Amino acid sequence: HVYVGGGYRSSLTWSLKAAEEAEAVAAISCSGHGRAFLDGPVSDDGQPVCECYGCYTGNDCSHLSKGCAADADSGDPIYLEPFWMQNAADTTVVISGWHRMSYDYADHNMMSIELENFIRKLHSIAGNAITKGRYMVFGVGSSQLLNAAVYALSSTPSKVLASTPFYPVYKDQTMFFNSESFQFEGDTNSWKSNNSTNNMDVIEFVTSPNNPDGELRQSILKGKTIYDHAYFWPQFTPIPGPSDQDLMLFSLSKLTGHAGTRFGWAIIKDRDVYEKVLKYIYLADMGISKDTQLRVLKILKVAIKQDTKLFFDFAYDKMRDRWDRLTSIFSKSTRFSIQKRHPLHCNFFHQTRLPSPAYAWVKCEREEDDDCASLLKSERILGQSGSIFGAKDRYTRLSLIKSQDDFELLLQRLSELVSREYDSIKTI
Amino acid sequence: HVYVGGGYRSSLTWSLKAAEEAEAVAAISCSGHGRAFLDGPVSDDGQPVCECYGCYTGNDCSHLSKGCAADADSGDPIYLEPFWMQNAADTTVVISGWHRMSYDYADHNMMSIELENFIRKLHSIAGNAITKGRYMVFGVGSSQLLNAAVYALSSTPSKVLASTPFYPVYKDQTMFFNSESFQFEGDTNSWKSNNSTNNMDVIEFVTSPNNPDGELRQSILKGKTIYDHAYFWPQFTPIPGPSDQDLMLFSLSKLTGHAGTRFGWAIIKDRDVYEKVLKYIYLADMGISKDTQLRVLKILKVAIKQDTKLFFDFAYDKMRDRWDRLTSIFSKSTRFSIQKRHPLHCNFFHQTRLPSPAYAWVKCEREEDDDCASLLKSERILGQSGSIFGAKDRYTRLSLIKSQDDFELLLQRLSELVSREYDSIKTI
Repeated sequence: HVYVGGGYRSSLTWSLKAAEEAEAVAAISCSGHGRAFLDGPVSDDGQPVCECYGCYTGNDCSHLSKGCAADADSGDPIYLEPFWMQNAADTTVVISGWHRMSYDYADHNMMSIELENFIRKLHSIAGNAITKGRYMVFGVGSSQLLNAAVYALSSTPSKVLASTPFYPVYKDQTMFFNSESFQFEGDTNSWKSNNSTNNMDVIEFVTSPNNPDGELRQSILKGKTIYDHAYFWPQFTPIPGPSDQDLMLFSLSKLTGHAGTRFGWAIIKDRDVYEKVLKYIYLADMGISKDTQLRVLKILKVAIKQDTKLFFDFAYDKMRDRWDRLTSIFSKSTRFSIQKRHPLHCNFFHQTRLPSPAYAWVKCEREEDDDCASLLKSERILGQSGSIFGAKDRYTRLSLIKSQDDFELLLQRLSELVSREYDSIKTI
Repeated sequence: HVYVGGGYRSSLTWSLKAAEEAEAVAAISCSGHGRAFLDGPVSDDGQPVCECYGCYTGNDCSHLSKGCAADADSGDPIYLEPFWMQNAADTTVVISGWHRMSYDYADHNMMSIELENFIRKLHSIAGNAITKGRYMVFGVGSSQLLNAAVYALSSTPSKVLASTPFYPVYKDQTMFFNSESFQFEGDTNSWKSNNSTNNMDVIEFVTSPNNPDGELRQSILKGKTIYDHAYFWPQFTPIPGPSDQDLMLFSLSKLTGHAGTRFGWAIIKDRDVYEKVLKYIYLADMGISKDTQLRVLKILKVAIKQDTKLFFDFAYDKMRDRWDRLTSIFSKSTRFSIQKRHPLHCNFFHQTRLPSPAYAWVKCEREEDDDCASLLKSERILGQSGSIFGAKDRYTRLSLIKSQDDFELLLQRLSELVSREYDSIKTI
């Protein structure tokens, strides 16, 4: 392009129109409480309109709905959106109308080798997983790989286990697919105490750090194990060292916040297991979107700018700040408690630090408060009941990775709730 | 932007760099026999390099490998690539780094309502399916929806059937997922002749037009049926009228040629079935890529420019031309035949016309030629054996939807092969 008095004269041809459209949509003001998107709803005259987040409404999302509940229910990882807005120029993707129409890349593979190489580099920088000499398979989120891994490990029939409290999708998927090859058997510890130590027909899910409580976990049965490492990144936990398990799953959603992109990957030691996971992905849907793979490549290129560690610094600062503020509120409460966090040395940040999990695992301490989620809901705070995770309803999961608006409202409501403990004391 | 002596001075900011990168990569000359892509391999100095198609090699894909086989094996729909290159400005997608990070759209739905509306409009224009009052579910290609549909229709246990010759994925998926809820039972007609007419526990796949032979088909058992309409578009078949089946599947791959994008959809009458298919997609992978949905929206917007019917004209002209040339070759042969095509009135093109299927279903007529694919392979023509589709190996499927290079080479090889029939006659 040519420099013309104060600006560039671009030599763009076919991409100009789309780029201008994208910038025009991004420039629509939604008061910081919403976004307009290219594929969103349009007004009567065909113009994109704001989609407001959480409790905000109005044409420009400037109106806060009074009495709207603080929604800490879902694991929607919007907390990183500001980072990607700050790094817009490096993370934009332009896809031509004829981009990768084929089922395959040029090497007759359904996965991008370039992307695979970047993921290996990312693990090497984050120091959270050994990938050398390991196989890799991409999936539609790690969600798809959970089930692919169960299929790959199952002999007929295998029992699938997970330790309470656990991510409910393990159970839901296994029951829904209703395969002759496996069935869900519930909590690992209960099963162990009632059964022999012959673990040959058992598949154990180990979520580390755990969803909902953030604990770093190890296999209990030491047999066939699926390590769900969705949250094993420096923003959520100290990284004591690289994981070197037989089958490890990771997810873009919790790493960079791009949940909508649906991208996850498995790292696998054994060739036979690898081939079975690959076959699952091939048969289920002939590989995953090439558009998605292109976008993930661009996003990860920015995430691994090694000189600055910009990305992990941003993400960890955000999570640490949220935990500092949350802890300060719960420290004033005797009615509600949150999980204990244990300091560990983090090889990534080269310091001993506390974990800063994606979720607060709240316990209602009073004997009569045995349905914690309902109690919080009556205070206009939405979380997920303990029983969803196989735990008691005395526990509730609150998401800490949603947008800043959502988090601020959550803190405000929690603050009010805890401060009322003192009011009642004063009343007495 | 401001008009500046002969060109526009763009006011682009964050999208400029990515747009320039995309145009630079697209400008790399691969002699028309390959493409360079943003996520492809790079040279030692970091520059993207050409990925050559089929039989072409060399830095700029200008070298044709002598004796390279004509590959008509896969259903890779590259035949439409030229259309998307001609319509570059309207089909480019620019995705910001923060585009739709959430699992959901603003309406708490995992599918884009805008896209759903465009798909309904597309069916209305193409006249190939009734969508009014029907539910829609998106999947990772129609591949994923095949199995989702089987799950949704199955009672415990259901028998899954398809009429020979049939698309092998029906069998492969059903057997691989090994569910207690269903099992594959093979050919519909054989099953019907050996079993009672109580069809309550049977799920029938009807592929119309059929893969491999292009026949318009109807259900044989008239029970629970999955209509795979991947090829029910005007470029492949006369559209006699809109399909109005209980459960219909469509795929972007065969419609626009974007196989790599992995996008398909189901149109469903019954609310209960719809909810089960939706639950399958949700549990399998929490919906499909938002990036993919944005791209599909843009592509379909161009495909349905109603005033010109540009897209379907281009696609049908391409297929008709290929069939004209193919037919001319086979008409000279007694050793090889292709499927009979029957003219029908096409409501889309308002004329009576022949089908122009995606595949030629070739029969080796001589008694000794009982392995047609092997015979063709020895003549450097690659197809898929009849037995892959549950038919005899006397049949072979040849793909007609690959790139123009692939098709030209296929014609050349077929021409040589058929012309040799005359040589042998002369020799006698």
